[in-house]
Amino acid sequence: MAWLTATYLIESDPERIEERAEALAVEQSVECPLEAVRDQRIRDEIVARVASIEAAGAGRYRVRVQIAVETTGGETAQLINMIFGNCSLWDNVQFVDVELPEALLAQFPGPRHGIAGIRALVEAPRRALTSAAMKPQGMHVDEIARMCRTLALAGVDIIKDDHGIANQSYSPFEERVRACQAAAAEAVRATGKPSFYAPHLIGTPRMLRERARFARDEGVRVVLVAPMVVGLPAFRDLVDEFPDFVYLAHPSFGGAARIAPALLFGRLFRLLGADAPIFVNYGGRFAYAQDECGALAAAARAPWGDLRPALPVPAGGMRLDRIDELLEFYGPDTMLLIGGNLLLAEGEALLARAREFVDKVDAVSGVSALTAARPSA
Amino acid sequence: MAWLTATYLIESDPERIEERAEALAVEQSVECPLEAVRDQRIRDEIVARVASIEAAGAGRYRVRVQIAVETTGGETAQLINMIFGNCSLWDNVQFVDVELPEALLAQFPGPRHGIAGIRALVEAPRRALTSAAMKPQGMHVDEIARMCRTLALAGVDIIKDDHGIANQSYSPFEERVRACQAAAAEAVRATGKPSFYAPHLIGTPRMLRERARFARDEGVRVVLVAPMVVGLPAFRDLVDEFPDFVYLAHPSFGGAARIAPALLFGRLFRLLGADAPIFVNYGGRFAYAQDECGALAAAARAPWGDLRPALPVPAGGMRLDRIDELLEFYGPDTMLLIGGNLLLAEGEALLARAREFVDKVDAVSGVSALTAARPSA
Repeated sequence: MAWLTATYLIESDPERIEERAEALAVEQSVECPLEAVRDQRIRDEIVARVASIEAAGAGRYRVRVQIAVETTGGETAQLINMIFGNCSLWDNVQFVDVELPEALLAQFPGPRHGIAGIRALVEAPRRALTSAAMKPQGMHVDEIARMCRTLALAGVDIIKDDHGIANQSYSPFEERVRACQAAAAEAVRATGKPSFYAPHLIGTPRMLRERARFARDEGVRVVLVAPMVVGLPAFRDLVDEFPDFVYLAHPSFGGAARIAPALLFGRLFRLLGADAPIFVNYGGRFAYAQDECGALAAAARAPWGDLRPALPVPAGGMRLDRIDELLEFYGPDTMLLIGGNLLLAEGEALLARAREFVDKVDAVSGVSALTAARPSA
Repeated sequence: MAWLTATYLIESDPERIEERAEALAVEQSVECPLEAVRDQRIRDEIVARVASIEAAGAGRYRVRVQIAVETTGGETAQLINMIFGNCSLWDNVQFVDVELPEALLAQFPGPRHGIAGIRALVEAPRRALTSAAMKPQGMHVDEIARMCRTLALAGVDIIKDDHGIANQSYSPFEERVRACQAAAAEAVRATGKPSFYAPHLIGTPRMLRERARFARDEGVRVVLVAPMVVGLPAFRDLVDEFPDFVYLAHPSFGGAARIAPALLFGRLFRLLGADAPIFVNYGGRFAYAQDECGALAAAARAPWGDLRPALPVPAGGMRLDRIDELLEFYGPDTMLLIGGNLLLAEGEALLARAREFVDKVDAVSGVSALTAARPSA
């Protein structure tokens, strides 16, 4: 018998925690009164087991539950269902960790590129990487393409669509991808430094697939996907079918209150193939604490079976004046994503501001002749 | 310009609520500092607007935000992204309501069958409907099929896989569907009363599709899907491609803390095509309050554009001895789903217990000659 171990933080009175833990184990396996489980084989091999209960601060307990691997059928959607299906509906339960035995883990190829693949693609072996988001949505295709060209001229490694940019009348997907690819290519010819446009792939599975095909045919190498919006199983399908893309994973719709951010974005997204999970940085406009962000980045990079390390991408209310602090905290195996703060400038001023971003990251974390080699816009 | 209205409950100090509401409107539209939005057209037509802020109890505010329909591109995944993408990551924000203007709503066909279609299928024009879940997972196919036959002989309207039953070695999907369909058919020939087996469709989009095809070819009419597990956009694709199925929607992975249950299960699931949303009943083993359940059932049935009413399915720790109370509360346009409590009995005793369920529902809410017409098992 093989078991995976899922860990939950449960708020409870001390006298009720054992009962709640046992109830959770039943909920996440046979989901019926144990009296209705008459078959000894099912009791032995299928019913989940409470492996340990530890106090974790006032009124909170860390509960490890062993779930039979066989119940997952080795499939993505069913794995989600078994580790956090019904108990996501319980009050005061947070899903915080999962350990998969080797044989189950081996069924998940994880990131196809990971940190090393992204570094090779952007030709940056050591320094921290840079990313910018094109905003605001509502811009027409020619405006987005112009912004893309400017940011590529500045040498930003990955220039992504804002996650709100989809397939709207003001910037239809195909037209936008074509224009931004051309704009980035033009800038790269001028600078000699690789920069990649990452379009946002969003839609129902059928649309996702069509859009992925179109992007691939246009030479796109990096894409942005929000796995919780499209659905984790749909994300898995996409990565399996289009393994050549580098996947930036966006946290939208992640509503992480019930799943620890480090687990959802740092580990589960990676397990399903995200090369670079984007997450909301501490001290920005979201509520994450610094140690939570640190744990997330560590989880994305930590050894985990044969899975490639994924590149953490802090984002959300980032500012140029925090680059020193952020790189000191996250280290160079990081891609900084600055969105709106960069776009406080436009035109020539945007080019200068984006260069400041690129140069600062390079100066703090790397060594390159990039600034010298670069022609003007 | 067309606008949809999303409503959020925000916990906040009184002096900060306006600022937080404005920040949310920006987050859910252009997602960058307003200073970076230079184009007046985008400010007028794309930036979301705070329509109203009302006190909603101590330290809570009900904030209505108008979001430009154009930003959704009329697509399912992008709609989710725009109404609760990034702000799902905020602390103290719950998404509680959404109003779609007519033209946008018209792009969502919603339930293909709804209450009337399900009533026609099971030939029960007035009374409340019955459903049972087959548990525990771990049972072999022959055991599940035997249980299915027993429940169909008892006259249960819809007999569904437990949502933990997927495609495991102990009950592979195809073998199970074939056996349960045959078992239900055999019972129906004996009783003359329609009863339907509803297999659980789960998987990545490609698997979902294969399984849906197989089920359709085997004559399946009702299926169980967990939209949050497979992903809301994947659920939409499935309903569009296989409109002949009646869809029971399971709440697994719904982690509804950040989306009000009435909105997620009662309205959004319905919008995407759920004929019968299953939800956790008050007074069971989940945390929902009675008025929350009442609001959910009301939302599922309420007039909403041209969408068919969906059939509310309370479940989760239901008991035979609560049928009177539950039917009084929910009324007859309801399907009661009893899982484990029914399965405290087995064999002949299960048949008797399931008949008690069916007869009780019939006696309380309907008029039929079912009991008299029924042969023994």
